[in-house]
Amino acid sequence: MFIKNYREVEAQEVEGVPGVTVRWVITEDDGAPHFAMRIFEVQPGYATPYHPHWFEHEAFVLAGEGKLRSETGEYPLRAGSVVFIPGDEVHQFVNTGDEVLRFICLIPHDWLKDVKKAS
Amino acid sequence: MFIKNYREVEAQEVEGVPGVTVRWVITEDDGAPHFAMRIFEVQPGYATPYHPHWFEHEAFVLAGEGKLRSETGEYPLRAGSVVFIPGDEVHQFVNTGDEVLRFICLIPHDWLKDVKKAS
Repeated sequence: MFIKNYREVEAQEVEGVPGVTVRWVITEDDGAPHFAMRIFEVQPGYATPYHPHWFEHEAFVLAGEGKLRSETGEYPLRAGSVVFIPGDEVHQFVNTGDEVLRFICLIPHDWLKDVKKAS
Repeated sequence: MFIKNYREVEAQEVEGVPGVTVRWVITEDDGAPHFAMRIFEVQPGYATPYHPHWFEHEAFVLAGEGKLRSETGEYPLRAGSVVFIPGDEVHQFVNTGDEVLRFICLIPHDWLKDVKKAS
């Protein structure tokens, strides 16, 4: 096991995405078997890409104000918001406030891409 | 997809564990394919059980002060603490402060118990 403050992990710039950094705080390299935890920070006036991918997001907003853009509309984000985005749904986190928009975002590891629950 | 405030989800008492409630904010029933998100609240003077289980925890402390008891010692917990506990490790979240200890805790779904990554 380990404990660390999320700020101990380097905030990396996201290539091609200005105004957004990510801290990978729990990863497969850490021994996490199924999913990874990241902390994103989006600066005022910036946003994550409007994009889909195979894996789901489970997110929790820690601070700031924003909106989630999706195929079905736009939804407000603030501290305490819980967000579930299924795989393959287009989505975007937009900072609409004056402070940093900070959120936790968890994703499954790549090896789970083609692993399905037996029905 | 969905967005909700975590407080919209009922805080359930945990059977046999006084002073602790849990909100299951993203579940398999919600369509989450791999892992679930819960929000725990531990009242001052209380703790979760000192116990192991097959599944890992990925946790993030939102508020309060406490300690994590484990086989290897005790570690302080406060807002911003990231915790990874591998499966089968004994652990306990203890509130040592005067306010509620609130943390996010994610676990894999049961169907992943015997699913292993191909090596």
